[in-house]
Amino acid sequence: MNNSSLISRYFFPSVKDKEFNKWANITLEAALNFLHNRDGQKLHAEISPNEISNFFRTIEIPERGEKIPAVLKETIEKIVKNSVRVSHPNYIGHMTGATPNFLLLCDIIISALNQNVVKIETALSATYVEWQTLCWLHNLIYNREKSFYNHILNHSDIAVGNYCSGGTVGNLTALVTARNILFPNIHKIGIYEAFKKADCTRAVLLVSQRGHYSIKKTAAIMGIGEENVITIPCEILTNKINLIELENTIQKLHHEKTKIISIIGVAGTTETGNIDDLKKLSQICTKYKIWFHVDAAWGGALLLSSNHKKQLDGIENADSVVIDGHKFLYLTMSHGAVLFKNEHSLDTIRHTAKYIIRESSVDLGRTTIEGSRRFDSLKLWFCFKAIGRQGYQTLIDKAIENAFLLSQMAESHPSFEATNKPETSILTYRYLPKSIKIQIKIIYEIWNLKNKDKLEKIEIHFPKIKNNFDLVIRQLNLFLNEININIQKKQRKDGKSFVSRTTLESIWKSQEIVVLRAVPFHPLTNQETFTEILTEQEILGDFFFNNEKENFFKKTPDAYCLFNDL
Amino acid sequence: MNNSSLISRYFFPSVKDKEFNKWANITLEAALNFLHNRDGQKLHAEISPNEISNFFRTIEIPERGEKIPAVLKETIEKIVKNSVRVSHPNYIGHMTGATPNFLLLCDIIISALNQNVVKIETALSATYVEWQTLCWLHNLIYNREKSFYNHILNHSDIAVGNYCSGGTVGNLTALVTARNILFPNIHKIGIYEAFKKADCTRAVLLVSQRGHYSIKKTAAIMGIGEENVITIPCEILTNKINLIELENTIQKLHHEKTKIISIIGVAGTTETGNIDDLKKLSQICTKYKIWFHVDAAWGGALLLSSNHKKQLDGIENADSVVIDGHKFLYLTMSHGAVLFKNEHSLDTIRHTAKYIIRESSVDLGRTTIEGSRRFDSLKLWFCFKAIGRQGYQTLIDKAIENAFLLSQMAESHPSFEATNKPETSILTYRYLPKSIKIQIKIIYEIWNLKNKDKLEKIEIHFPKIKNNFDLVIRQLNLFLNEININIQKKQRKDGKSFVSRTTLESIWKSQEIVVLRAVPFHPLTNQETFTEILTEQEILGDFFFNNEKENFFKKTPDAYCLFNDL
Repeated sequence: MNNSSLISRYFFPSVKDKEFNKWANITLEAALNFLHNRDGQKLHAEISPNEISNFFRTIEIPERGEKIPAVLKETIEKIVKNSVRVSHPNYIGHMTGATPNFLLLCDIIISALNQNVVKIETALSATYVEWQTLCWLHNLIYNREKSFYNHILNHSDIAVGNYCSGGTVGNLTALVTARNILFPNIHKIGIYEAFKKADCTRAVLLVSQRGHYSIKKTAAIMGIGEENVITIPCEILTNKINLIELENTIQKLHHEKTKIISIIGVAGTTETGNIDDLKKLSQICTKYKIWFHVDAAWGGALLLSSNHKKQLDGIENADSVVIDGHKFLYLTMSHGAVLFKNEHSLDTIRHTAKYIIRESSVDLGRTTIEGSRRFDSLKLWFCFKAIGRQGYQTLIDKAIENAFLLSQMAESHPSFEATNKPETSILTYRYLPKSIKIQIKIIYEIWNLKNKDKLEKIEIHFPKIKNNFDLVIRQLNLFLNEININIQKKQRKDGKSFVSRTTLESIWKSQEIVVLRAVPFHPLTNQETFTEILTEQEILGDFFFNNEKENFFKKTPDAYCLFNDL
Repeated sequence: MNNSSLISRYFFPSVKDKEFNKWANITLEAALNFLHNRDGQKLHAEISPNEISNFFRTIEIPERGEKIPAVLKETIEKIVKNSVRVSHPNYIGHMTGATPNFLLLCDIIISALNQNVVKIETALSATYVEWQTLCWLHNLIYNREKSFYNHILNHSDIAVGNYCSGGTVGNLTALVTARNILFPNIHKIGIYEAFKKADCTRAVLLVSQRGHYSIKKTAAIMGIGEENVITIPCEILTNKINLIELENTIQKLHHEKTKIISIIGVAGTTETGNIDDLKKLSQICTKYKIWFHVDAAWGGALLLSSNHKKQLDGIENADSVVIDGHKFLYLTMSHGAVLFKNEHSLDTIRHTAKYIIRESSVDLGRTTIEGSRRFDSLKLWFCFKAIGRQGYQTLIDKAIENAFLLSQMAESHPSFEATNKPETSILTYRYLPKSIKIQIKIIYEIWNLKNKDKLEKIEIHFPKIKNNFDLVIRQLNLFLNEININIQKKQRKDGKSFVSRTTLESIWKSQEIVVLRAVPFHPLTNQETFTEILTEQEILGDFFFNNEKENFFKKTPDAYCLFNDL
């Protein structure tokens, strides 16, 4: 293709509209077709990952360009068809899910405008949209007086938060800020010198064992070290940070040459959706004068529901809060936000550059970790305008109701047990063979007893294994783990529904158990969906159990007595 | 709006197509209208930033949702109309610019698929597209044997690079990796312990004075400290790192308890687009066994042109390289990539989590700093397919030609001088009053002379200021700085064209001068555009000069003799 035709075909303003509109129609049709799932394709594509990978094996950049309709066709056949239908109501496995249709329109606008929000010279209205929506989120969390926000909106040199690609960069921003405030000048002199000046040899982050893996990643990046993320155990069953253990840890650290950069409250653990007691956490932080960060990437959305925001009580005392738009705010990828209680916190990571981000400017890039950024805040602005707080409340309440419902259905089902008590729209459960379901409660009870009581109870219920009860239960769990992994994999492969899986230690204490993990926040996901999913999982579970039980009992004959009617 | 209507209106698959298509048409029309600039709006909106900001001052999240057509209308009137027309051929001020029209289609697809490329369970084909295109970029830089890439594509546990939001996160990834390789276990134990184990009290990064501000930002985030970014002077006129000064610095540091984490080569400085001598830099890095990182966020694109790739000779020896898609690869926001020569480098920042990113998986999130990510690599894949390497060469060659042309036009113009020699598609120049243009060369010559020669030459040309020549020149430059700032601001405000500005120290050595900075890489930008822009700038410059010269000569009467025919 020669120069002039390349230019006239592909670059505005000389592009031919008629041709472009034809391409746009093909694209929109393919997009809608994917979203409507009309062709009845599987959630994870008809063909195997290996077959898909074969489409993408040429290792050299194509030498010559192809015509757009040809590339579009290839895109649709190879890529669109083989994408994961994350927006399907039966896809309840991850926090990536349903988004309102109009976000497609927002992405068209964002792409066409192609603003770079790092700087007002490349983003005019976009700068103010970011600013305003950051104030909206700040207001939602901190609910400061009106004059505070008016002051913010009139003073370009103040930033109450940043947008970023997601929770990870949000957590990084918050914790670097906390580090910089704790150690004066650390951003200039580095950790080694700053520690020496503070007569300190170690700095740590405290978070529950359910904290997101990005906290460790953040610690590694910012030079603190993964090992200095001290994970505090959770209370069994609630998945909330154990406050007594936390205070013990703080007091122990106060005797060492160790500084605590931040205590991190988890508002919606990724694995179970449960929320730490933020009120009590904030009181502890105040008592010990420690930076309080809340990772509300998932659960921050609850602030939009008057029925559920109470669960986040105490978040208004957080020094920093992360909320992800692309999770429970139903936005498309990628949209994260980090907010700060104090409007001067972000000053500690402020930077300028000559050609861009001048000191006196309103450039948003002054306080962000990222440089160039897409105008993704339009999606939040548009959603809040179109759905409103009330609409969000409807969506969020329904999503949480969904989680309660599925959890209840699992718990009352002869072949499943719930493994956490949901608070948001995440829940875990696992398959159990029917023949053990009734016994399992007795087993739990025994497991939690001590010495004499334990032996007595075992003698009553399972006299045959009184000498090796713990070992047998462990074997049983390993067997159940295997079955649950197989259920999850096979269901994913069959492609009618999708739940994810994870491992928890909550109920069986020091033993990890594999659980199925559901995030049923799609507004079209309902009781019928759950019945369908549980039925499929039960059939799969029974199949794997029946297939493997002989082997299992051969290896662990003692376990036989745990089952009824076998 | 009640629950059921919210769901049926906005969420696929129950949404009504007909209504949605109507919205899509309105959106596409607005997008095309913006791109075609048909309404003759200014590049930076008709109304002032302050007036725009007034649209976005409500500080509470709207309580009730509005209908989509209403929100769309508001979006178009308040946001689209008041966005910066970065894709206009007369907008040559920043690296944010023209993109091929079909990227709008890619963004529709990316948004509809809403894949989260952190994990294959939420991104199937997308995972392989990322993988393949990372190999394309790796191949472009390192040109390893075919078997190497086949090995990569068959071994999911190997990563030769990451995509990220842009150059800043790319630089952070590369430099954290370099840090982790230099200090074993640092990601676990942190900087303080790692330094002690290595018997070291300081770690530094070396980069030219033209290094991007993100290097300092990175140093601050990763705990090294901004002050430990040692900036090496550039050679005057070329804007390339001074290699002698660099080696002197390295040798000096070797005598201290200091470790050098990386030497950073700049392949396309943000301010002038010039490229360090990467070949020689790589030799120095080999000699001293130092990690060689190349920030080719802007200039990496030259590898696609057989006419210009020679300028990047030596990049194939870099341990890590950053390239931004959203700069000179003409992609929409945001698209960055970081590539590593060694396929095991990224192992040092690998992480896993139970519910996601399992150890044995092909999940792309294992080695990224970011967590959840958008499927932005589709844009690179599509562009390379549609444009091809040859097409890119056409675009890039034209863009560089443009820079030469404008630089030449400025240099030969009676009212401008070029202030750097362009190598990519960035150039700087500044306005000078016609009456000084001829003298300016003599002034430069004198400025660079030493002692006796200098005095002699001043005596010949400007005898009146022989005792305070330096001071007068400094005053002159301050005056010119003011004029050039005013030109840039006024031109931006008038909205017909846009160039940016920055400050350089190259020609006048220790004095900073304000220069106009152009990035003329839009394929429709041409000689006529430049004539238009220079003519406008000349008129503005003359206006400001004539307006202010009386004041200037009043304060600095000695400067009068520098001007001809005044």
